[in-house]
Amino acid sequence: MRAEVLAIGTELLLGQIVDTNSSWIGEQLALAGVDCLRHVRVGDNIGRMVEAIEEALGRADALIICGGLGPTQDDLTRDAITRVMGVGLVRDEVVAERIRAMFASRGRPMPENNLRQADVPAGAATIPQQPGTAPGLVCALGDKVMYAVPGVPYEMREMVAGTVIPDLQRRAGQPSVILSRTLRTWGQSESGLAELLALRIDELDVAGSPTLAFLASGIEGIKVRVTAKATEAGAARSMLDAEEAVLRGLLGELVFGLDEMTMEATVVDLLRKRGLTLALAESVTGGLMAARLSAVAGSEDVFLGAVTANSPRALALLGAPEGVAPLASAAAGLARAVCRTLGAGVGLASVGVLGPEASGGVAAGTVFIGLAIGDDVESVEVRLPGDRERVRGYGTISAFDLLRRRLLAALV
Amino acid sequence: MRAEVLAIGTELLLGQIVDTNSSWIGEQLALAGVDCLRHVRVGDNIGRMVEAIEEALGRADALIICGGLGPTQDDLTRDAITRVMGVGLVRDEVVAERIRAMFASRGRPMPENNLRQADVPAGAATIPQQPGTAPGLVCALGDKVMYAVPGVPYEMREMVAGTVIPDLQRRAGQPSVILSRTLRTWGQSESGLAELLALRIDELDVAGSPTLAFLASGIEGIKVRVTAKATEAGAARSMLDAEEAVLRGLLGELVFGLDEMTMEATVVDLLRKRGLTLALAESVTGGLMAARLSAVAGSEDVFLGAVTANSPRALALLGAPEGVAPLASAAAGLARAVCRTLGAGVGLASVGVLGPEASGGVAAGTVFIGLAIGDDVESVEVRLPGDRERVRGYGTISAFDLLRRRLLAALV
Repeated sequence: MRAEVLAIGTELLLGQIVDTNSSWIGEQLALAGVDCLRHVRVGDNIGRMVEAIEEALGRADALIICGGLGPTQDDLTRDAITRVMGVGLVRDEVVAERIRAMFASRGRPMPENNLRQADVPAGAATIPQQPGTAPGLVCALGDKVMYAVPGVPYEMREMVAGTVIPDLQRRAGQPSVILSRTLRTWGQSESGLAELLALRIDELDVAGSPTLAFLASGIEGIKVRVTAKATEAGAARSMLDAEEAVLRGLLGELVFGLDEMTMEATVVDLLRKRGLTLALAESVTGGLMAARLSAVAGSEDVFLGAVTANSPRALALLGAPEGVAPLASAAAGLARAVCRTLGAGVGLASVGVLGPEASGGVAAGTVFIGLAIGDDVESVEVRLPGDRERVRGYGTISAFDLLRRRLLAALV
Repeated sequence: MRAEVLAIGTELLLGQIVDTNSSWIGEQLALAGVDCLRHVRVGDNIGRMVEAIEEALGRADALIICGGLGPTQDDLTRDAITRVMGVGLVRDEVVAERIRAMFASRGRPMPENNLRQADVPAGAATIPQQPGTAPGLVCALGDKVMYAVPGVPYEMREMVAGTVIPDLQRRAGQPSVILSRTLRTWGQSESGLAELLALRIDELDVAGSPTLAFLASGIEGIKVRVTAKATEAGAARSMLDAEEAVLRGLLGELVFGLDEMTMEATVVDLLRKRGLTLALAESVTGGLMAARLSAVAGSEDVFLGAVTANSPRALALLGAPEGVAPLASAAAGLARAVCRTLGAGVGLASVGVLGPEASGGVAAGTVFIGLAIGDDVESVEVRLPGDRERVRGYGTISAFDLLRRRLLAALV
């Protein structure tokens, strides 16, 4: 089974958008064991789209077309497919109804041209996942197949994961299964991890499977991906289980979670296990700790509230000590104050200097994390690189990681 | 002059690296007035590379090949070019000497295979910029031209800017400049904007320039990009100015900013112009409003603080009315309370139901925005689609947009 990816959009050619969709699809195809030999991008031009589709189908068994499914005149993927298939467009009433319902549920009037999205090439099947107004398409042509998915990343991903990849595997009669698992780490550099794992990597090179790969992910840390290939899923999963155990033994508490588990989801999970609630006092992180915790489903059970303070009156809400305190004791004081004021088991606070300039003799990028767990109060200083955005981001993750390690230690 | 871009590298197809090089080259070509009709990516396979090069030269006048110029066995761009040109490789002693000198200056021994990089197709010229060990190539073939540049971004950029673009413009003999400007809008769907601008789009279609394009950007709204082509920059800029005025006339306050201006930066800007300060009370948005405002440099001058409240005691901090209130009056009450408690000129609050389930008879995705500006207090209900993340995101932008419109009206 050989596949190609065709991304549609003049804005991609002009460099106004980076084509991350093709990369993501390429990764999913690789994990599913489907060879992908070429990615192509063309603009919103019907002639060049038809040419690119026909060439791709000449070389490959399957083509994933991404983009050009919107409601406007320059969304031409449906038209290009009808030309290639030699058919017309027909109104799909199920899709039309779905689009009408989507507008109705938002209480917005539906511009009539949105129904263009319900016009699908005759003979095409629509993809059941449809998070937006654009339906995805599965178009068989002889023994080949074209899939059309929207360029909006979250819509595309849901359709590719939910329909395109399983359909390709079914068509390929795939005799092998490739599974992967990601161990997420924080607090060690990529080269540091490589040193910790050097012997294990050598052993795996000899064995051939599973394989390891490192993936630097900025403020989210370094991911270690384990990939196992086997003839059936159970065997692949056993290989992943065994390797995860080996890697956890070597990396210890550097590993904070698996796969899509975020640092903040780990923290919420540990708080729940300990029966503790959390309150935040944010100065230098400016609400980012609260925003990330709130993104975790169900976090409101353990995360009671936060105060973001850019002014003396906001600090006074917490009953924080008055006057100018050294930052380290200010962080500890705020953690204790917010913890008491909100009646939480744990208080976490951030103060520091965002930059670009130093302030009060403290260098830009200096962050003090205050942590109060019951009567234990501490303050930890971290020095962070980069601009405003990176100092806030690293400060947030550093604070969560400190809390995670303390909760882990308390659980032992 | 029509150009194409060919990126080489199996890691690009597998999604291990996102192909930002093609996007950057596409942008440079557009700015130089060179049409770019297609981007292609293939892996490190000599047969497929030759095929892709020959196809591209069949369609276009110029091809920029990016990657595959390194010293290892799977760096095959030089070999693919010799096959297409029907020539052999010859050692370029100037390049060889440059590579030897580069290793010597770092005090490192030179692995012999690095000299492979000095073997260039017979008849090719080398690009004078050479920041690394890989030389770039200019290969004329009849009336067409191929450029080969390394995949390392900073090496590629120096060569493209220093040699490839000027050489293409010289060959085209028609210097032209393309500039673009983006009007950022919020509150109308892509199809709704298309209807508002339908007549203007028809007029521009006849005129040929400037051109308009829509770009959906999720919770950030829809971007309307104006692109103007002229023989020199001043004329292109005048066209953009004139078109921006026309579009602002048609779209009115749907336009919240230009280019990289975010909704929250617009809000901070308007608050400063009005001499007002802001305080937030966040329930349903969970700190996201505070986090986004804090990301704006200098926002701490007008953004005094925020309370994120998931518990009665956090709400009590604000002196909010006790007991269960209907959500609409709760939003208004919180806005007024946080405004007074923090001594701010404006209070903005969010309450609602994140979902996935309805709560207290209120549907999931319902958000009430409370806004207090001085003695004027109001509550606005919005119905938002999607999961927890999207409801928080849309709720945040909806609140900012409401504040923006009120501040605009107050400025008139």
